Amino acid sequence: MHFAIAPDNRNDALDLPQPYLLFLGDVAHPAFAKTAFGLRDWARERCVGEYALADAQVSVGLPPMSPRQAHAAGARALVIGVANVGGVVPDSWLEPLAQALADGLDLIGGMHTRLSDVALLREQARRHGRRLIDVREPPPNLPTGTGRKRSGKRLLTVGTDCALGKKYTALALARSMRELDVDATFRASGQTGVLIAGRGVPLDAVVADFAAGAAELLSPNAAPEHWDVIEGQGSLSHPAYAGVSLALLHGSQTDVIVVCHEPGRDELLGYPGYALPSIEETIDLNLRLGRRTNPAIRCAGISLNTSQLGEAQARALIDSESARLGLPVADPIRGGASLQALVRACLNAPA
Amino acid sequence: MHFAIAPDNRNDALDLPQPYLLFLGDVAHPAFAKTAFGLRDWARERCVGEYALADAQVSVGLPPMSPRQAHAAGARALVIGVANVGGVVPDSWLEPLAQALADGLDLIGGMHTRLSDVALLREQARRHGRRLIDVREPPPNLPTGTGRKRSGKRLLTVGTDCALGKKYTALALARSMRELDVDATFRASGQTGVLIAGRGVPLDAVVADFAAGAAELLSPNAAPEHWDVIEGQGSLSHPAYAGVSLALLHGSQTDVIVVCHEPGRDELLGYPGYALPSIEETIDLNLRLGRRTNPAIRCAGISLNTSQLGEAQARALIDSESARLGLPVADPIRGGASLQALVRACLNAPA
Repeated sequence: MHFAIAPDNRNDALDLPQPYLLFLGDVAHPAFAKTAFGLRDWARERCVGEYALADAQVSVGLPPMSPRQAHAAGARALVIGVANVGGVVPDSWLEPLAQALADGLDLIGGMHTRLSDVALLREQARRHGRRLIDVREPPPNLPTGTGRKRSGKRLLTVGTDCALGKKYTALALARSMRELDVDATFRASGQTGVLIAGRGVPLDAVVADFAAGAAELLSPNAAPEHWDVIEGQGSLSHPAYAGVSLALLHGSQTDVIVVCHEPGRDELLGYPGYALPSIEETIDLNLRLGRRTNPAIRCAGISLNTSQLGEAQARALIDSESARLGLPVADPIRGGASLQALVRACLNAPA
Repeated sequence: MHFAIAPDNRNDALDLPQPYLLFLGDVAHPAFAKTAFGLRDWARERCVGEYALADAQVSVGLPPMSPRQAHAAGARALVIGVANVGGVVPDSWLEPLAQALADGLDLIGGMHTRLSDVALLREQARRHGRRLIDVREPPPNLPTGTGRKRSGKRLLTVGTDCALGKKYTALALARSMRELDVDATFRASGQTGVLIAGRGVPLDAVVADFAAGAAELLSPNAAPEHWDVIEGQGSLSHPAYAGVSLALLHGSQTDVIVVCHEPGRDELLGYPGYALPSIEETIDLNLRLGRRTNPAIRCAGISLNTSQLGEAQARALIDSESARLGLPVADPIRGGASLQALVRACLNAPA
């Protein structure tokens, strides 16, 4: 086990240069541009425009710009907003990316191949004094967890499985809180979230002994009425990732959890034979373990991902699950009165 | 989250060159030679001798040898068996370590400074075709966890806290099993354990997303009656390291846990205000969470570290705790009938 590093030696979380120009490359299908669409939806104020190559067949609807125009419009970084088969940088991107560096933009990526592993980009970045940033790389010199109580309020989205809406739920809850004039900050624990927030820690890439410490760093001391709304990772019932989930739960010292679930999912994604835990079991396990670093932890409600259901079916399920569990239930994508009730329950505010 | 790597792409755990020559440097006090004493006690058959510099004031009682003599006696690596203030390689060690490389030995260390960060040693190793091995470095290309059932039997030592005898207990239980002609292997999850076993994975240094996968790798498929006795890490109730403990519990798919505890320790070491969890709570939490990857998990008993007590006091406490909990309780250092009863309970064998 590692010894704790004193708080004043702590490095900060990743902090990205902003605003962004969204690079779409030569993307042929919207499914490969999920990062760019996510940034448009959740960080619109941080995106000055989009930059697609001649062969691209997708637009996210932002003003088209060259890197030079984007820089003149205030952009400080080009974000690679598309995924590529195999996670490599294709040859067709090299010249445009090198030009973006020459035009004054840092490059931000999160692909399997690191930007700094591409010799041409490395040399071009050095020549122009620009940075190549990989959002999958955690900040250096992370501390170990201290368990010491921090000021401010915290909400963590937890799940019955991976990939069912924990990031989306945290973004939607933070936005809804701000609409109620609550001072709320989305805190990103994964790479897409880090791009959206412009800062954060990719928790899955942190060395295990420092994972809880990184989670503590992610939601630092804040004003007493401030809310950090923290993107959850994995699930306490996941045979591969439960350790990450527990480190995040302990390090967050969260006051409130919201359990995220996809109705109809019966087994963990990619883990045949592993039955999904029930919502009740997920609540109970998170509260029992979370109590260790915050005895006042409570569950405010449930976020259902009803994207596979029609509107009437979804509304009926949200109502019946709320009655069954005795808790507010909402689908943040559908919004409406149920989402408002969930947000009020998080804030412990009267209707 | 990372995608699983197919089993046939898996790299193996760390595997160290053996037997060893134990390097004692110029150590002035036995407390700084804990690693060397541990290797003498638990890996005597892997140690051909000890090598101390002129100023040293400590011996572990092995035959004194130069690197050249040790190589002739079959040694393949020099292990740095002493800790140094600040974890650096002092100047007085450089010439002897360089000579060991020239004499045909690889170097194995686990200090804060990596051996390969010392230019002289790096050059000397390259010149002589030798390796500089850091037992704190996990093997590359670790897989993510699969949760798939493996053959063979497994025991994991778990704890109410860090640093109270989980490694020692696992070593003692594996040794006791072998004395009963049970085919048992100690599996190391920390750096001192890796040195003792000659292989293993330093789990605390693994990236969080791969920790459960590394734990799966640590106790691979084995013969149905074979026992892996796995060194535990941290505690599920520890605010900094619970994630590591959970990944190890899930990845081990352990059949049996033995709970390690130090009587009289009321707070977590170095975490004032964090009350030690009770033994009952520790059993319950480990069984509840461990059931996810092995529904047949059970607690066989308790290992008490009674090093702070006199013999009569220790025996009385072992008896009263056993009566109170209704489980076998033993101190592996004291051995005796209670240890035999604990081992039989692990094996589920009649008295």
